[in-house]
Amino acid sequence: MTETGQPASDDQQADLWLGPEQLSSWVSVARLITRLPWAIDAQLQRDSGLSLPEYMALAMLSEQDDRTMRMSTLADQVSVSLSRLSHLVKRLESRGYVRREPDPSDGRFTNAILLPAGFTALEAAAIGHVTHVRQLVIDNLSAERLRRLGQDAERILQRIDSPAR
Amino acid sequence: MTETGQPASDDQQADLWLGPEQLSSWVSVARLITRLPWAIDAQLQRDSGLSLPEYMALAMLSEQDDRTMRMSTLADQVSVSLSRLSHLVKRLESRGYVRREPDPSDGRFTNAILLPAGFTALEAAAIGHVTHVRQLVIDNLSAERLRRLGQDAERILQRIDSPAR
Repeated sequence: MTETGQPASDDQQADLWLGPEQLSSWVSVARLITRLPWAIDAQLQRDSGLSLPEYMALAMLSEQDDRTMRMSTLADQVSVSLSRLSHLVKRLESRGYVRREPDPSDGRFTNAILLPAGFTALEAAAIGHVTHVRQLVIDNLSAERLRRLGQDAERILQRIDSPAR
Repeated sequence: MTETGQPASDDQQADLWLGPEQLSSWVSVARLITRLPWAIDAQLQRDSGLSLPEYMALAMLSEQDDRTMRMSTLADQVSVSLSRLSHLVKRLESRGYVRREPDPSDGRFTNAILLPAGFTALEAAAIGHVTHVRQLVIDNLSAERLRRLGQDAERILQRIDSPAR
C-alpha cells in the first residue's frame, strides 16, 4: 500500500489509483496541509499566546467597521463549527479581547465584538505572524508562482464547496 | 486591519505588510490549509469511521515490509506529537486494527504493528478516499499545475524544516 492507501496491484481499479507523479504531488500537498497550519499555529502560540483560529477570529472582527460579527458568520469565515467557535470566543472573552451580546436587530442571534485590548493584542501578534508567513510562503515563491498557488487553492476550494457528483 | 491582521496604514512597517496581490493569494492558501484537511477528514469519518491521521497511520504501516514502525517514527510521518499518536493508536488498538509491543531490538522504544483487520479497513477506506482526493485535487488541476503545486508545497515544507534566520 502507498501513502494514499492504494494496493500495489489491483487491475480492476487501475483507473482509480494515482499514477506515480500524481501520488508524489499529492503526498507533498497532503504534508503541506498537515504541517503548514501546525507551523503557523506554533509561532503564534509561542510569540503571542494565540492559536491560529483565535488570531483569525480577531483579524476578521477587526475588518468590520463596527468590529462586530454574528457568531455564525464568524464561524463560517474562520472555518470552524459554531460550537468550536463558542469555546474559542469564551477564551478570548476571559482575556478581555472580545465580548458577546444578543444581536440588537434579532435576539435569536449572538454577536461577537472586538474590544480595544483585543485589537492591541492582534496588532502586537501581526508583525511576527506576517514575518513568519513571508518567510515560509510569500518570499519563498516567485510572484508568478504565488499567484498560481492562490488560483489552484481557489479551484480546490470551489470543488469543496460544490462537490462534483 | 486585513485578514492577516495588518493595520491599514503604518509607514514604518510598509515593507513588512503584504501587497494586495500577495495578500489575496495568501488568504486563498490559508483557507485551503484550513478547509482541505477538514473536507478530507469529513469524507473518511463519514464513509469509513477513520480520521485523516488514523488513515495516514494505517497507510504508513501498510507500506512497511513487516507492517511495523517505531511509534516515534510514525508520529513524525503522520505529523502529530507522540502523545497525540499514542491516543490515536489506542483507539486503533481497541478496534483490533493495530497492536503495540516493545521494540525487540531496543526495549526503550515501542513499535506499532498493523493487524490484518487494520489492513482490511484501510483497503475498504482507500477507494472512497482516493476518489475524493481525485475529485477535489488531482482531476481538478492540469498535470502541469499539479506538478507545480507539489513543487511549491515541497519548497514551503523545506522552509518549515529549516527556517531562514
